[in-house]
Amino acid sequence: MLENIEIVLVNTSHPGNIGSSARAMKTMGLSRLVLVAPLEFPSDKALYMASGATDVVENAQVVETFDEAIAACHLVIGASARTRRIPWPVAAPDECAKLACEAAACGQKVALVFGREASGLTNEELSRCHYHLNIPSNPEYGVLNVAMAVQVVAYEIWKKYTEAEKNHVQFTMPLPECRWDVELATSQELEFFHEHLAKTLEHIGFLDPENPRQMLNRARRLFSRMQMDKLEVNMLRGILTAVQETQR
Amino acid sequence: MLENIEIVLVNTSHPGNIGSSARAMKTMGLSRLVLVAPLEFPSDKALYMASGATDVVENAQVVETFDEAIAACHLVIGASARTRRIPWPVAAPDECAKLACEAAACGQKVALVFGREASGLTNEELSRCHYHLNIPSNPEYGVLNVAMAVQVVAYEIWKKYTEAEKNHVQFTMPLPECRWDVELATSQELEFFHEHLAKTLEHIGFLDPENPRQMLNRARRLFSRMQMDKLEVNMLRGILTAVQETQR
Repeated sequence: MLENIEIVLVNTSHPGNIGSSARAMKTMGLSRLVLVAPLEFPSDKALYMASGATDVVENAQVVETFDEAIAACHLVIGASARTRRIPWPVAAPDECAKLACEAAACGQKVALVFGREASGLTNEELSRCHYHLNIPSNPEYGVLNVAMAVQVVAYEIWKKYTEAEKNHVQFTMPLPECRWDVELATSQELEFFHEHLAKTLEHIGFLDPENPRQMLNRARRLFSRMQMDKLEVNMLRGILTAVQETQR
Repeated sequence: MLENIEIVLVNTSHPGNIGSSARAMKTMGLSRLVLVAPLEFPSDKALYMASGATDVVENAQVVETFDEAIAACHLVIGASARTRRIPWPVAAPDECAKLACEAAACGQKVALVFGREASGLTNEELSRCHYHLNIPSNPEYGVLNVAMAVQVVAYEIWKKYTEAEKNHVQFTMPLPECRWDVELATSQELEFFHEHLAKTLEHIGFLDPENPRQMLNRARRLFSRMQMDKLEVNMLRGILTAVQETQR
């Protein structure tokens, strides 16, 4: 079930960090690495730093955009050091591990996303995540290297995974048995919904002309908390379509 | 009280790992770094990898031997990936963090020791530790980079430290209030005791001539489990001296 969890590195500058992340992943049983527009890849430095985890680097999937990386995922958790204007659901590494393992065990695809070395994830990217990962750290210097952050979260995931095994928790239930009757919507489906919502709000003149992003951001937070299934998304989009057919 | 916890790196080959370890330490509030005969130090590469933690690298204490590094310490925990012939008390990162924080809060000096990149700590060095740190990992590839291992343990220490703060656990009790009436023996005092013991066992012809190390190793494990205080060590050494004055 750990194969349902992918690590996504966005715009990594130093290929060494890709290799170190791969090694960190493999030591904790993770193997699916996705690279969003890395600055230098493929790279010998990445392979060197991967040590015995060159297979993870060689099998890494390279995509052009953040959207592509998370399109098929049901649960997206993004690393964030900052406190943001609109507070988002925040999870510590052990809580993330619990969320990720539970989702993965139900056959959901999970993405753990880590941003650029210098600047992390953008606000735009963070608003696409269900949870923000916050690694507790020294308030005077809390800047973990990206591969170190991967190691800490991967370690918590392995801990949770093996604890569950020890306690004979059934971690591979087939999908229909899992707490829900309909499959959860993917990130891409949610994205189409949000686009649809924005257009509809514009249509009825409801977007705050001073600050349209603020409103949409709050909507994102609300709907990502709800973890909608495919049926619910279709239902809401049906309503939006009906609203769009009205006249102002 | 975190200043009572030191990270010891033994014979590090790659100075980059020294820098990465320093950064990992600082993100989790640790600052005391001790380097046992590093292969290349001082080093620009170490400073580069330390990023905002150059102060930790610059203040690192360099010593010649493992013994020197742990001489003044009361609790010594050594990282070990191997299973050994004689099983030793083993602690996971969260258990190590608990042990380290409790000891440090009582004013004891704690050393967390990490070995060479290629081969870890020697059996000799591991036999000098009270506990062996084992980081749970993928049985098919469990080789964490040394700085990654430092990050995981430091993270658990920070977690424990801040949890205690949140719950208003008094972490800075003066020594006499702490679970013991006499100060614990330091590593150096224990080492003198073990040397004294070896000589005495030789004197009475008790050492297995086929395998003297095996016996002494078991004695080390026994006495390190006991966490002796200064008075107890002196008492036992008094007995040893009396035994040495006998004739075979």
